[in-house]
Amino acid sequence: MSDLSGIRALVFDVFGTVVDWREGVVREARRLVPDADPYRLADQWRAGYQPAMEAVRSGGRGFVRLDVLHREILVKVLGELGVKASGATVDELNLAWHRLDPWPEVISAFDHLRPKFILASLSNGNISLMVDMCRRSGLRFDAILGAEVARAYKPDPVVYRNAAEVLGLKPEQVLMVAAHPSDLDAAKACGLKTAYVHRPFEYGREREVRRPDAARFDLSVDSFTALAERLGA
Amino acid sequence: MSDLSGIRALVFDVFGTVVDWREGVVREARRLVPDADPYRLADQWRAGYQPAMEAVRSGGRGFVRLDVLHREILVKVLGELGVKASGATVDELNLAWHRLDPWPEVISAFDHLRPKFILASLSNGNISLMVDMCRRSGLRFDAILGAEVARAYKPDPVVYRNAAEVLGLKPEQVLMVAAHPSDLDAAKACGLKTAYVHRPFEYGREREVRRPDAARFDLSVDSFTALAERLGA
Repeated sequence: MSDLSGIRALVFDVFGTVVDWREGVVREARRLVPDADPYRLADQWRAGYQPAMEAVRSGGRGFVRLDVLHREILVKVLGELGVKASGATVDELNLAWHRLDPWPEVISAFDHLRPKFILASLSNGNISLMVDMCRRSGLRFDAILGAEVARAYKPDPVVYRNAAEVLGLKPEQVLMVAAHPSDLDAAKACGLKTAYVHRPFEYGREREVRRPDAARFDLSVDSFTALAERLGA
Repeated sequence: MSDLSGIRALVFDVFGTVVDWREGVVREARRLVPDADPYRLADQWRAGYQPAMEAVRSGGRGFVRLDVLHREILVKVLGELGVKASGATVDELNLAWHRLDPWPEVISAFDHLRPKFILASLSNGNISLMVDMCRRSGLRFDAILGAEVARAYKPDPVVYRNAAEVLGLKPEQVLMVAAHPSDLDAAKACGLKTAYVHRPFEYGREREVRRPDAARFDLSVDSFTALAERLGA
């Protein structure tokens, strides 16, 4: 384990790391489009996520918030699945991402971490999505940072650098927490410290995530509870 | 009183409206530059605030965060007052704005308002200033918006429009809360609703603020407690 005594702020990836996007989307799909296969819908929706952001990251498209990208992907996926839905239903289903639940230990671990560290979201989700999610679930960040504040999508280095900058910290005083190695690699390249949190069932029980080599990160844990313990919080 | 039943979010001016900047700066000045007249220092520091932001608003200077402007003004004011201070002391004193206390009723009123409304700061203060202030005082916003998110200083209309936009709301669903009529006028011009909160002693007991005509705003109150009551929260 690297020396993490200089850490002042923890910045969190959200979808998959803090919240269980798949079960949350499935729940809303069952409610709003009961004819669709909810897991297929969730997985295909999520599969459109990186390509949609890539259009922005490559400079081919100006910055638009994730709600807009999510809706475009959703319309396409509903078409592919042969599901008919009114505009109002599509709007409502698009808010599934505003209504995701945290993994079970998160809220309690945050209460341990908060007195010692600044806690900020560093998600590709937009501000209103994060606000709605936090208000509904009881999640509580000191600041919502990420894509809409930086006007760029991770893993664009602008997003990680912006986080350290607006917090008034050096990159090495900021610990990026994520369940995705690629996110952490990009943070590391910008000088941030990195903590990997293993979320084996992000994509479902039948597609368990393989645990990456722990040496790749400053810290590697199985839960936010373990993260708090390892950070002495 | 206008119809405010459509309000979904309250956005708050901070310096003077939520926190007592003058007594906070005086406290830090007494601690760090005991030879200076603390009220003169506070008042001259604050007097440099609008001109410094105007350089950015006019386009003459690219956006820089308020911490930077505050430090430049402070160096000038210390020179005018003939106060010698090390760079480290100036840095520390500059953080006075990160350590301001809320007016007495604010925290409790926020607890009443929060279940019913999204609460966001809409300050010219930068993100780390707001984060530090909230963590120290127990103030709690759902989101920190304002100058550094919009990359512009109030009363630039960009700041008010950005607030509604990132919250995913129509301007008329957002209530701007401020102790300064000019801030509210600018918000109103962007379609936001407005609530004036009277803070008679923002500039000291000897310079009591005159109460503006209540008809100018959608709501006019003497405290955040009264604001919560008027909004049924």
